[in-house]
Amino acid sequence: MKFPDRLFAAIQAKGTPAMVGLDPRLNRLPEPFRQQAEQGVSQAAATLVDYHRALLDLLAPHVAIIKPQSAFFEQLGAAGIEALADAIQYAKDLGLLVLLDAKRGDIGSTSEAYALSYLEGGWNNAFPAADALTINPYLGEDACQPFLDAADRSQTGLFFLVKTSNPGAGCFQDHGSPSLAEVVAAKVADWGATRCGENGWSALGAVVGATRPEELGHFRQLMPHTPLLLPGFGFQGGGPEGLAPAFADDGLGAVVNASRSILFAFERDDLQHLPSWEARTEAAVLEMKAALAPYAATSA
Amino acid sequence: MKFPDRLFAAIQAKGTPAMVGLDPRLNRLPEPFRQQAEQGVSQAAATLVDYHRALLDLLAPHVAIIKPQSAFFEQLGAAGIEALADAIQYAKDLGLLVLLDAKRGDIGSTSEAYALSYLEGGWNNAFPAADALTINPYLGEDACQPFLDAADRSQTGLFFLVKTSNPGAGCFQDHGSPSLAEVVAAKVADWGATRCGENGWSALGAVVGATRPEELGHFRQLMPHTPLLLPGFGFQGGGPEGLAPAFADDGLGAVVNASRSILFAFERDDLQHLPSWEARTEAAVLEMKAALAPYAATSA
Repeated sequence: MKFPDRLFAAIQAKGTPAMVGLDPRLNRLPEPFRQQAEQGVSQAAATLVDYHRALLDLLAPHVAIIKPQSAFFEQLGAAGIEALADAIQYAKDLGLLVLLDAKRGDIGSTSEAYALSYLEGGWNNAFPAADALTINPYLGEDACQPFLDAADRSQTGLFFLVKTSNPGAGCFQDHGSPSLAEVVAAKVADWGATRCGENGWSALGAVVGATRPEELGHFRQLMPHTPLLLPGFGFQGGGPEGLAPAFADDGLGAVVNASRSILFAFERDDLQHLPSWEARTEAAVLEMKAALAPYAATSA
Repeated sequence: MKFPDRLFAAIQAKGTPAMVGLDPRLNRLPEPFRQQAEQGVSQAAATLVDYHRALLDLLAPHVAIIKPQSAFFEQLGAAGIEALADAIQYAKDLGLLVLLDAKRGDIGSTSEAYALSYLEGGWNNAFPAADALTINPYLGEDACQPFLDAADRSQTGLFFLVKTSNPGAGCFQDHGSPSLAEVVAAKVADWGATRCGENGWSALGAVVGATRPEELGHFRQLMPHTPLLLPGFGFQGGGPEGLAPAFADDGLGAVVNASRSILFAFERDDLQHLPSWEARTEAAVLEMKAALAPYAATSA
């Protein structure tokens, strides 16, 4: 089954385009994890394994897809990569889809090594294959080709950075007329046109910040069959308002990511009446799903 | 000592701007390493440790700086990251400078995690700090700021992708007028202007392919105090001709990277009279140094 078919079937099954990011900040984990992590690198990595298994257990009934952020695992070196591998495999075992947010991009033979690493199970199954990977397109089409080839072989997806969620994204992405982001969007649409699933959506997606609803309609027009990843919901200021242009009439076409607003929910004053970090986290996920209800996909 | 002072002092001491990339392709290692690597992931990672220690021993007398390519280690998962950490630490112990080629770039808090991972020793010394890191600037100035801050704190360097060595680099990098690459170059020069060492060179460098000598003079003008990393020498088609505009009159200002032309030299027909892979590799390094002799820095 192609990635877009798997993605949107799962989104329909869970009834929400909500995605949760795993961005573990070691000094902002719920207890007892925070204190355990303080004891050193191997303990911190072991703590991340336990924490993410518990987190994934509570997320699995509610969302279709999770997005681990590689950087927060890489800070623990090899032990962190083991914790990342564990989270990916555990999520897959729970039936969750995994978009690895690693924003890789390099020249041909090196891109091939990154694609092998994250979409095809690594060298001799050294690392669990994600269902999709974020890609930085700066190096150009020939540099992206090995990722396209690997995604074709492994029936996985790619999400290319087009217009990111950070306040200063326009610094280079708005350069020129049409803008760089528009030019990248057109290329992503073009590369993706021949890579659609049964549902008509492409295996090649694009990142457009949920923080910029005013641009969503325009990017949707430039990329009519491209799944959009909308990061920055919640903590970064993105709300549910104005996301409609990203979605088709049947509610398919986009996923909305929140990381910090879910991961830090256990600290929220207004949720302290709930007895555990799990209960508070679950409450924040349910809030997000409710906020995104207007965009919930109708079942096929 | 600031990064540019360390870099060019080392280049003067070794008498060459040559840099060697560590891009280990497991199926093209010299014997006995290739056969050892075939036995599985942990054996492959252990083989890379042994191979890189031997390689670094032979490189250390000849060059100032090496450039491990993270992708080729990442394909082995956590075991590969351990092999990368070993190569970085071993190179540092030999007095070599290390530019980690990982082309990272993300939004603020995630860039901070990447900078901690690779420039500041990771979380609680989880990973040996490199002397410099390659950065993909696509996400803009605010996204690059955590890397600048980390480089300031740790007196390390950054090399921003400006115009890469791949044939299709112009796909997005030539977009607009001025081009995206020119706009990025101007920003890198601007960010770097306040970050110069005693020798007048900045801690912020830029990547401009050695495969495009016709553009070097122009980028040098746009970035007068920016160390240039010129990748693509040798295998990718870059030669010594036309690199002069990258260098100042005293021979400082640039480093020239070769990876495959050095790493695969052991296979060369014309070097089979030499008795070992080490001898053939060393011969290729000496050839490169001879080719770059016109740009050898005079001692201070």
